[in-house]
Amino acid sequence: MVNPITTKMFEDMTREELKAVKLKPDTKVIVESISEGPPSIESMYEEYLAAPHVIRLIREGEEKGYDAAVINCFGDPGLAGAREVVEIPVVGPGQAAMLTASAISHSFSVVSVLKNVLPLIRELAQLYGVESKLASARSIDVPVLDLEKDVEKTRNALLEESKKALREDGAEAIVLGCTGFTGLASFIQERVNVPVIDPLPTAVKMAELLVDLNLSQSKIGYPKPPK
Amino acid sequence: MVNPITTKMFEDMTREELKAVKLKPDTKVIVESISEGPPSIESMYEEYLAAPHVIRLIREGEEKGYDAAVINCFGDPGLAGAREVVEIPVVGPGQAAMLTASAISHSFSVVSVLKNVLPLIRELAQLYGVESKLASARSIDVPVLDLEKDVEKTRNALLEESKKALREDGAEAIVLGCTGFTGLASFIQERVNVPVIDPLPTAVKMAELLVDLNLSQSKIGYPKPPK
Amino acid sequence: MVNPITTKMFEDMTREELKAVKLKPDTKVIVESISEGPPSIESMYEEYLAAPHVIRLIREGEEKGYDAAVINCFGDPGLAGAREVVEIPVVGPGQAAMLTASAISHSFSVVSVLKNVLPLIRELAQLYGVESKLASARSIDVPVLDLEKDVEKTRNALLEESKKALREDGAEAIVLGCTGFTGLASFIQERVNVPVIDPLPTAVKMAELLVDLNLSQSKIGYPKPPK
Amino acid sequence: MVNPITTKMFEDMTREELKAVKLKPDTKVIVESISEGPPSIESMYEEYLAAPHVIRLIREGEEKGYDAAVINCFGDPGLAGAREVVEIPVVGPGQAAMLTASAISHSFSVVSVLKNVLPLIRELAQLYGVESKLASARSIDVPVLDLEKDVEKTRNALLEESKKALREDGAEAIVLGCTGFTGLASFIQERVNVPVIDPLPTAVKMAELLVDLNLSQSKIGYPKPPK
Amino acid sequence: MVNPITTKMFEDMTREELKAVKLKPDTKVIVESISEGPPSIESMYEEYLAAPHVIRLIREGEEKGYDAAVINCFGDPGLAGAREVVEIPVVGPGQAAMLTASAISHSFSVVSVLKNVLPLIRELAQLYGVESKLASARSIDVPVLDLEKDVEKTRNALLEESKKALREDGAEAIVLGCTGFTGLASFIQERVNVPVIDPLPTAVKMAELLVDLNLSQSKIGYPKPPK
Amino acid sequence: MVNPITTKMFEDMTREELKAVKLKPDTKVIVESISEGPPSIESMYEEYLAAPHVIRLIREGEEKGYDAAVINCFGDPGLAGAREVVEIPVVGPGQAAMLTASAISHSFSVVSVLKNVLPLIRELAQLYGVESKLASARSIDVPVLDLEKDVEKTRNALLEESKKALREDGAEAIVLGCTGFTGLASFIQERVNVPVIDPLPTAVKMAELLVDLNLSQSKIGYPKPPK
Repeated sequence: MVNPITTKMFEDMTREELKAVKLKPDTKVIVESISEGPPSIESMYEEYLAAPHVIRLIREGEEKGYDAAVINCFGDPGLAGAREVVEIPVVGPGQAAMLTASAISHSFSVVSVLKNVLPLIRELAQLYGVESKLASARSIDVPVLDLEKDVEKTRNALLEESKKALREDGAEAIVLGCTGFTGLASFIQERVNVPVIDPLPTAVKMAELLVDLNLSQSKIGYPKPPK
Repeated sequence: MVNPITTKMFEDMTREELKAVKLKPDTKVIVESISEGPPSIESMYEEYLAAPHVIRLIREGEEKGYDAAVINCFGDPGLAGAREVVEIPVVGPGQAAMLTASAISHSFSVVSVLKNVLPLIRELAQLYGVESKLASARSIDVPVLDLEKDVEKTRNALLEESKKALREDGAEAIVLGCTGFTGLASFIQERVNVPVIDPLPTAVKMAELLVDLNLSQSKIGYPKPPK
Repeated sequence: MVNPITTKMFEDMTREELKAVKLKPDTKVIVESISEGPPSIESMYEEYLAAPHVIRLIREGEEKGYDAAVINCFGDPGLAGAREVVEIPVVGPGQAAMLTASAISHSFSVVSVLKNVLPLIRELAQLYGVESKLASARSIDVPVLDLEKDVEKTRNALLEESKKALREDGAEAIVLGCTGFTGLASFIQERVNVPVIDPLPTAVKMAELLVDLNLSQSKIGYPKPPK
Repeated sequence: MVNPITTKMFEDMTREELKAVKLKPDTKVIVESISEGPPSIESMYEEYLAAPHVIRLIREGEEKGYDAAVINCFGDPGLAGAREVVEIPVVGPGQAAMLTASAISHSFSVVSVLKNVLPLIRELAQLYGVESKLASARSIDVPVLDLEKDVEKTRNALLEESKKALREDGAEAIVLGCTGFTGLASFIQERVNVPVIDPLPTAVKMAELLVDLNLSQSKIGYPKPPK
Repeated sequence: MVNPITTKMFEDMTREELKAVKLKPDTKVIVESISEGPPSIESMYEEYLAAPHVIRLIREGEEKGYDAAVINCFGDPGLAGAREVVEIPVVGPGQAAMLTASAISHSFSVVSVLKNVLPLIRELAQLYGVESKLASARSIDVPVLDLEKDVEKTRNALLEESKKALREDGAEAIVLGCTGFTGLASFIQERVNVPVIDPLPTAVKMAELLVDLNLSQSKIGYPKPPK
Repeated sequence: MVNPITTKMFEDMTREELKAVKLKPDTKVIVESISEGPPSIESMYEEYLAAPHVIRLIREGEEKGYDAAVINCFGDPGLAGAREVVEIPVVGPGQAAMLTASAISHSFSVVSVLKNVLPLIRELAQLYGVESKLASARSIDVPVLDLEKDVEKTRNALLEESKKALREDGAEAIVLGCTGFTGLASFIQERVNVPVIDPLPTAVKMAELLVDLNLSQSKIGYPKPPK
């Protein structure tokens, strides 16, 4: 798993949170952060800054013999490029979460951090072919790096926006729109009584699924760069 | 797992084929067939004949404490109704396979048994929101109950149609369009060099994924019938 | 015409209401109810319970020499399967009403009984290719079997939701979303000044249209089941 | 019924062909041609030339007490404008035929006169919301005014293109794409075994259906011009 | 440039307003009004009345050696027909403005004169392929011929509806939905801080762009009428 | 104008070719290449490598007082990110060319260099909202850096694929799918008699259009990154 940001703090948090995910006993998740790039990602600009470094780490992961790669950011920065340069499956939490939401509901809302990222999320839904299922994209107006400062505030804001999405936007399920929310899904799910999808664990389980089914990205769709 | 047909032969075959799927060590798949209904499913008419019995078995499964249900037919007969009456996740191989194909390719083709089922497959793609990803639906013109009579013929016909889908229809991946094809995906995948998705194993892994992530169908989208 | 429910009361009501529909003098509508199945339909589960019995009655109707079949439920339960097994045109009120609404408006809303059925109605619109015309699906929160208990309440609730659809959702026409509403369209239409489409009479007139034009469902799209 | 062209010959032909349509005994069709405008319509330019005159005739028809208006051209020239200025339902054969095709098939092809009109037909399908059902638009390369010169040639060319549409384009039904083809549908239908929709009779029956159901175009969607 | 209305007053106004547009030094805009037709356009009916006269003037313009034609009305009356009969590029402000809005935003709203024209605007967006980008169509409820009576009122109403579109409809840009608004864009843009697109100047610049790039409408898509 | 590749040779070529474009007399195009990044772009991987450097150059351009930026690559690498960080309009040739094609045809094909880039081009069409207009994406199977080695071969291959697109795919116009083709459009256009859109000159003219109309990307859609 690649953290596409240079903020090391997230590495430990991610490791901690992944312990709560029910994986296969022989699944081992190695978390690595890029050494150069943005401290957090809340724009396409920062996605572009991160992408080359994400791809490099994934390529190194393949060389080390890892079975799959997961990008630890809802925006899936570098996903298409990484899929071109490696053979192992590369999974993005944004795609994994939105497809899983499509599987268990007719329409879902994504609740994310800042307003800034809402156009990006709508574009992702469009690219992944699920835009007709996207009821709305909402934000709690808290920057990524502040999420942990006041977890209770984050949690309550998420709950509030999730309720609005269900009441006003016709959503049947909620997708948490930032991997910085990892671990908060069950709190929300218990209170809103609809599926709440946690993108990072979903991506890791999706990677397991692909590896176990001997599947990876199509090399027609993601061909090796010519040189 | 519910076999939506009365042909017992398929029960043993399914059990055998599931052994090859890499499941979690503590995952146990119980295969049961409906006792009344069609011998095979190649039309909406037969889906309707099977659906009430499929739903009854799934409800019984929930009462017995099973964690999830999988319907053993690409047409996902009874899926929406079953999701209404139970709380545990109900997975259809058609939906699981087409969403997985969407995750790893930009467009895919479904290769199925008889021409008869092609309109049904296109309708499923529409309902599941992946019609823009469906490059084509093709058939090998062999009825379900004859698939095993000449496995080599089945395999070669599948390979032939898969190649056509890649060459003529712009597909980047192949979805096997019948759970009677279970076990043939790797043969095709080795020869066409693109992902070939086997719907039944994919559905079982998807059920694992949902259970491990504590997710099930939205009860807004699949509400309990009023009486 | 097939009533897909076992509640005989509806049979007489339907016969009564059909008297008010302007049919050709030689058109005769025979109303029959299924003898086994759900008392009313407000879920996919109940649609599946009804479907095999609906199809059996339609097949018998064809054998008796009837010219067309109409399913007396907005959800069109069993429609696709019935179209496969008979040659005579089979008409569903849901499809007939939504296509007629598409012919005379740019966008319409469906007002139905319970919230439960709204996802089904949206799926029908999707399958019938009119989802871009569906402004909204709304409910009056009255179960089918209570519609007749307080007709005035039903009527007023319908009027209320219809007005909201016009004011808030951008609808240009209203489709009554349950054949239990038969006969109430003119009351609403006089008050909202836009077309209000009554699904059952529309389906009967559509059946006349198809018979008079010597048309029936395509047997490529609805092929005879192989055995 | 308004003939949107000045070629009087078509008037008699249309009257003759309408005799074969099974109408209600009390339905009377009055056929009138515009006195100024194009001799035939095979372009948007000619549609625009015809439209103001079509609308004037329809307005006069309403004043004379007619119950509905039908425009005798597959391109539905003047349809939206006519619907604005009158209260009686105005029906276009292009819309009536394509919606009827949508009702009885999953996809259809339109076979028309000249290549020139194919972009117009695709635009109509888009406007009427059925473009996802339009398998293809094909032409027989015969101008409208030559259709009657060699009816057998016309018929055979229609049959040929219809067969291609079924074989190559995935159509399940055929829509004749010119009201100059009126009367040829049964010949084709008997030979291709799928529904062949004749736009003019379909439009007349659709007008009957709307009148009998007391429906007309929505005045929200087709508001009266302000002065 | 063709004014598709007979109200001469607009001719001078248009000439005045075009002076403010930054054109190439050698670009000369000749403004001409149709001599017969509607005084203003606020319905499809009036578009049809204007279209034949618009096309005649454009044809004359081509004969005089003009390089391009622009229709001075947001509804682009006669556009498709004019493109068929001439070789020089014909530009409609509606299309030019909506495509330009698509280029610089993910979604935009059109603010126009009367409610009457909103269905027309939605249909244009559909035909031009930008309906998924159209956040909403709104009106200020002032008829075209009253726009100049109280310019301040017009301006403030435009500003008000623009703000609502941004706040309530998710628009990222505003398209002025009537060429009678020419010159008001900068007032609004300064106050809402998003791009405000003025359709007439945009159409003139688009005509320059096409001429300079030696481009015109495709004669496959807009073929010469057969006679 | 930013060349998103390090191959300096292209700089001079681009300057040369831009001389042939009819710009306003006071328009000055400054061509600069990135100093670090890929030698050519034929994959998402290379787009990601180029993007951060492209954005840096564009930011510097804004600081130098340039009025607009154009990215010299059909894939529009870095476009969204650049639009976030600057206020001046940033134009991508892929978007400019596809929107211009949409303005003058109902459907167009893109003919590009290698098969590798076809999925990227289809994704661009999807993002830009013109996928319903994209008839096909085709390649001539020549890498970017070989285009100039045998210009005649390049030209003939382009002509060949363009003809196929018109004959087999239903295209009405051709978009050259690589800015390395700059200057070849007129050769093709003269031979196929439909508009052939040259992306780089189109982008430059589009930049002029935006500057002259005082328009830039919406800051709601492309908000400034939070830090």
